[in-house]
Amino acid sequence: MNFASDNVYGVDPRIMQAMVDANTRLTDVSYCHDEGAKAVEQRLSQIFGKDVKAFLVMNGTGANSLSLSTIAPPHGGIFCHESSHINTDECNCPELFTGGAKLIPLPGEGGKIAPATVANKLNYFGHGEHAPKPTAISLSNATELGRVYSPDDIAALTAVVRPKGMKLHMDGARFANALVSIGCTPAELTWKVGIDVLSFGGTKNGGMMLEAVVFFDAALAEDFLYRRKRAGQLQSKGRFLSAQMLAYLADDVWLANAKRANRLASELGKGISASNHMRLSQPVEANEVFAVLPKASFDAVQAKGAFFYDWPIDGLNEDEIHCRFVTSWATPEEHVKDFIALLRSHA
Amino acid sequence: MNFASDNVYGVDPRIMQAMVDANTRLTDVSYCHDEGAKAVEQRLSQIFGKDVKAFLVMNGTGANSLSLSTIAPPHGGIFCHESSHINTDECNCPELFTGGAKLIPLPGEGGKIAPATVANKLNYFGHGEHAPKPTAISLSNATELGRVYSPDDIAALTAVVRPKGMKLHMDGARFANALVSIGCTPAELTWKVGIDVLSFGGTKNGGMMLEAVVFFDAALAEDFLYRRKRAGQLQSKGRFLSAQMLAYLADDVWLANAKRANRLASELGKGISASNHMRLSQPVEANEVFAVLPKASFDAVQAKGAFFYDWPIDGLNEDEIHCRFVTSWATPEEHVKDFIALLRSHA
Amino acid sequence: MNFASDNVYGVDPRIMQAMVDANTRLTDVSYCHDEGAKAVEQRLSQIFGKDVKAFLVMNGTGANSLSLSTIAPPHGGIFCHESSHINTDECNCPELFTGGAKLIPLPGEGGKIAPATVANKLNYFGHGEHAPKPTAISLSNATELGRVYSPDDIAALTAVVRPKGMKLHMDGARFANALVSIGCTPAELTWKVGIDVLSFGGTKNGGMMLEAVVFFDAALAEDFLYRRKRAGQLQSKGRFLSAQMLAYLADDVWLANAKRANRLASELGKGISASNHMRLSQPVEANEVFAVLPKASFDAVQAKGAFFYDWPIDGLNEDEIHCRFVTSWATPEEHVKDFIALLRSHA
Amino acid sequence: MNFASDNVYGVDPRIMQAMVDANTRLTDVSYCHDEGAKAVEQRLSQIFGKDVKAFLVMNGTGANSLSLSTIAPPHGGIFCHESSHINTDECNCPELFTGGAKLIPLPGEGGKIAPATVANKLNYFGHGEHAPKPTAISLSNATELGRVYSPDDIAALTAVVRPKGMKLHMDGARFANALVSIGCTPAELTWKVGIDVLSFGGTKNGGMMLEAVVFFDAALAEDFLYRRKRAGQLQSKGRFLSAQMLAYLADDVWLANAKRANRLASELGKGISASNHMRLSQPVEANEVFAVLPKASFDAVQAKGAFFYDWPIDGLNEDEIHCRFVTSWATPEEHVKDFIALLRSHA
Repeated sequence: MNFASDNVYGVDPRIMQAMVDANTRLTDVSYCHDEGAKAVEQRLSQIFGKDVKAFLVMNGTGANSLSLSTIAPPHGGIFCHESSHINTDECNCPELFTGGAKLIPLPGEGGKIAPATVANKLNYFGHGEHAPKPTAISLSNATELGRVYSPDDIAALTAVVRPKGMKLHMDGARFANALVSIGCTPAELTWKVGIDVLSFGGTKNGGMMLEAVVFFDAALAEDFLYRRKRAGQLQSKGRFLSAQMLAYLADDVWLANAKRANRLASELGKGISASNHMRLSQPVEANEVFAVLPKASFDAVQAKGAFFYDWPIDGLNEDEIHCRFVTSWATPEEHVKDFIALLRSHA
Repeated sequence: MNFASDNVYGVDPRIMQAMVDANTRLTDVSYCHDEGAKAVEQRLSQIFGKDVKAFLVMNGTGANSLSLSTIAPPHGGIFCHESSHINTDECNCPELFTGGAKLIPLPGEGGKIAPATVANKLNYFGHGEHAPKPTAISLSNATELGRVYSPDDIAALTAVVRPKGMKLHMDGARFANALVSIGCTPAELTWKVGIDVLSFGGTKNGGMMLEAVVFFDAALAEDFLYRRKRAGQLQSKGRFLSAQMLAYLADDVWLANAKRANRLASELGKGISASNHMRLSQPVEANEVFAVLPKASFDAVQAKGAFFYDWPIDGLNEDEIHCRFVTSWATPEEHVKDFIALLRSHA
Repeated sequence: MNFASDNVYGVDPRIMQAMVDANTRLTDVSYCHDEGAKAVEQRLSQIFGKDVKAFLVMNGTGANSLSLSTIAPPHGGIFCHESSHINTDECNCPELFTGGAKLIPLPGEGGKIAPATVANKLNYFGHGEHAPKPTAISLSNATELGRVYSPDDIAALTAVVRPKGMKLHMDGARFANALVSIGCTPAELTWKVGIDVLSFGGTKNGGMMLEAVVFFDAALAEDFLYRRKRAGQLQSKGRFLSAQMLAYLADDVWLANAKRANRLASELGKGISASNHMRLSQPVEANEVFAVLPKASFDAVQAKGAFFYDWPIDGLNEDEIHCRFVTSWATPEEHVKDFIALLRSHA
Repeated sequence: MNFASDNVYGVDPRIMQAMVDANTRLTDVSYCHDEGAKAVEQRLSQIFGKDVKAFLVMNGTGANSLSLSTIAPPHGGIFCHESSHINTDECNCPELFTGGAKLIPLPGEGGKIAPATVANKLNYFGHGEHAPKPTAISLSNATELGRVYSPDDIAALTAVVRPKGMKLHMDGARFANALVSIGCTPAELTWKVGIDVLSFGGTKNGGMMLEAVVFFDAALAEDFLYRRKRAGQLQSKGRFLSAQMLAYLADDVWLANAKRANRLASELGKGISASNHMRLSQPVEANEVFAVLPKASFDAVQAKGAFFYDWPIDGLNEDEIHCRFVTSWATPEEHVKDFIALLRSHA
């Protein structure tokens, strides 16, 4: 029973098969200029209902950091949630790829940034060149606390930042999970409400290294070929990236996988909240569950072979621990059931 | 009546004279390898009671950012106060000179970081390479809110971070003001309580461009000549830097100037707190005064020719404004008196 | 008939099978901390006859640029051949990952740097901090012109740079090709003659994304986990990297593949040099062939479906073109034969 | 007798007096937003016959590196002479401020780049994103070998690079020396022949820290206030920069000083070439003289108190040494005469 992360699971068999199939071609154009890469861009344009510029990259950290490099100059400031992956889990890669732009961490319930928080923070940037120039905001959807921004949520943020000339990035490492949670179209969750560039992630949802940077504002993509190469994010045998993405997007694999993961999280969340010795710290909206457990329970279930991470937050009692549980496209159904039973048995 | 900043005032005449005198030498060794630069290092070693390595640089932002580059690798994290100059007023120069190290902003009353805050934050850095490696902490003394760290304050922080292998930087843009406020020795405020590297600032206290990076841990100074040059912080006609510093340190000019500035701030603070329509937001400990004014008063006194900055903080009423007043070695005595009278007359 | 690059070919079936097999594990530890990653380090230690520190990364540009970041500070200089991949084909990634270290390009026959050239260049670095500090040298083996450094060649360079405190990097994107060309042991070609860090490449020789940074000087590996993450070179589902490397190193796949590629290059070279309208520009020592063709021949054979790159050099006649031909582990035998025949038929 | 560099001399008394005068103002607007800074921009606009954007910075390395940051992205390539100051004497500051752009060193007689050399080099940049994007060229005028580019020289380079979308920077650390050598107008030597941004240097010609970045293409200046601050190139007490520049440009001080320095160099050059044991290696066109001396002569005259640098070049005999002699606005006339006599007496 492993709820540590969605990336402890492997690759969707359909995606793996696509990689095997891609290998039957004796040769292919290298460096992501293969026909498959073009097909990816076309397919994503269909999905998003708009001609996008799409570039396959090596991983999510690369996708985010490269995206940010197109909307924040080195002297820029990037508003983000204080718990955002770019701020806490990418070890300064955003700073590296942007040339030193500053992430401006903001608080917010559930990993979400509120428009009023942004508006207030902007008041601190009125004295010219001493502070970084606020040029970008990055939203994680789903958030690092398993919550989702609705189209309205995003539109309200856009209304605050667009008049300041700021651009919007979405970290979509779990974009599919957010999308199926809301039930809107990809367009409605992105460019129609102001997103300029999206890290479209698939690795966590069944891929091997399956990430694309998707530009809704084509002007931002200028020189992106250079940026990708410079950042070491260019795969030489690019066919194995395009094959993954095409298989992921075919037959709604990406949506089905996300739905499954979200459903399992919902079940896990219900199981936890039904217990009287544990409490959810967040509503379950995507494929992550956050809960406060007695430390004794934590130790006991880990000793029984369940694996998941503690997730530090402030304000706990000494005998409590805050934990994250992630479900995935591949988490066995029975693991969820068994785990709920296990948790309950160690009150 | 100008209380906008200590740097709106000019250069102490004794320092200016030293520059004029330095110009009487037909030639001198360039690039800060002049005899004066060596004398500066010796003089600072005397003052700090320890053999230091000292390097003259162009300005305070350079001093801070270069200092940090010696104690934080590009993949490092630098704990600092959220209001610290390096975090809010150096437009990503620390990020630039360190190669992208991340400033980790911490809250704290009066611009001071509390040991418990650091200890708690360190709990969030236990999962390896995903977060930056916490390698440094930077303290501003005096703080950006005009408060001072005592030797005990610093020792308590050192006790938290040293066991983690972290190094300590002090931003001493107003070091003299802090020192004379406390009344201890320079050694007691720095290396004796764990400071590894100090930005020793003199520009605000009577210099023209009068800043040194002072290393108490000589190992950190390795390659600093290269670092200084690479960062564009090397003055070719270096004699004009060393002349300033030698004059600044001679005859306790630096201490006398700081005392005067602090005294004027204290008087201004008393004048404000004696009024019933204004309130100090911070105790006055160095040469800065922070107060909440009615917006109407702000407008009125500015219209009468007083100049100072609003200083955004959260939690004010709509008709209030938070302001900073800085006094300096050169602020005329009567300006303080007149300004207090002016403030009171516009309740 | 495709001689454009070794990376236009796919993945060795044994390596692909290993990836498929790795996918049968329901879960595995992520972020390259899997058991496979440890096995890779052990296996490489066996192969090199020394306890090495080895880290899997995403691609060759990443391997090189990260390697260099451990031996050159941002204010450092890295001696390299002017035609080296790091200098001409990595779009400033070495500059990015090192934080701005300078590549110092040197001339040299066959892409090889001569000891005397290095010794002479060092004479230009005697004036202190104005020039970058020369701290590193990078050698490509095989070189970008298909030539190889022997152990003696390397030892002679080490003798020049080691007394200056410089460290040695080897770009081994085609390390196996160099190794089997010389016929020595991996140890003899690396640490026994002074190499400190090696980019051990396997992508071109049958992998998908199959690159490791191998440290012979373990001290250089300190913080490398952070470096790798920060640079976006960390694969989340790391089992698919370790599986590749273990399959590559098993049963001497890596050596056999390289031998085959070298043999085909040798045959192609003989075919070309036997013609009287083409001439080799370099002896064929690994898996690349460089030759001068009449432009008319180039156009004719490309029109017939042969694909390879022109490779600009100075000093050609107007009707000549310099070309590169790369053979690989997967290049069909008959393509080489057919291509030779085609070339000859278009004199 | 000191011919080591123009920066071993001090500050022109008129410029020093202007600094003293600036100090009589009790307060002034800080951070280079003073009225003096605006006057500098206006004065430079007059001098260049065009509305320029001009920014005072701390030193020449800063001026060059910041200039380049506006015309070369981090993934860009900057063509420059292999002996250029940015390539050999700024310790990777251009790489730092540009975020890792690559300097592409080119050979060329007298430190000058020939159009054909640029055109040929561009042939090597035809394969897309693997190489840096060639976006800029930097010319030193006068060159590091004391030679000058004429307007025609520059126009010929512009004709090669402009169609490729490249921008042109001029390193004018000795701009005045080049200008008076040619006898054209400032406009004719810069924007009229294609220069987009100029490092307008005055430190070597009588200033203390007297450097401006001058944009002829105003669009490049966007965000430059942020760039200057971020790079640590912003002086807080900016009045002391503007005062220097205004005094430098008043009464043709800058031109008169340059003429004097050039004349002395010419005399020194004649004295050397009249000797039969020394030979000039470059025609004397500005304020630098380069000559090959017998090593014995070098040692003898240095022992007699003459100070100047050896200047390594290839191709000398073992008993020869190549040297640089710099004259300045302040070099005493008699020192030149005495030095010529001294040199001759030590054949």
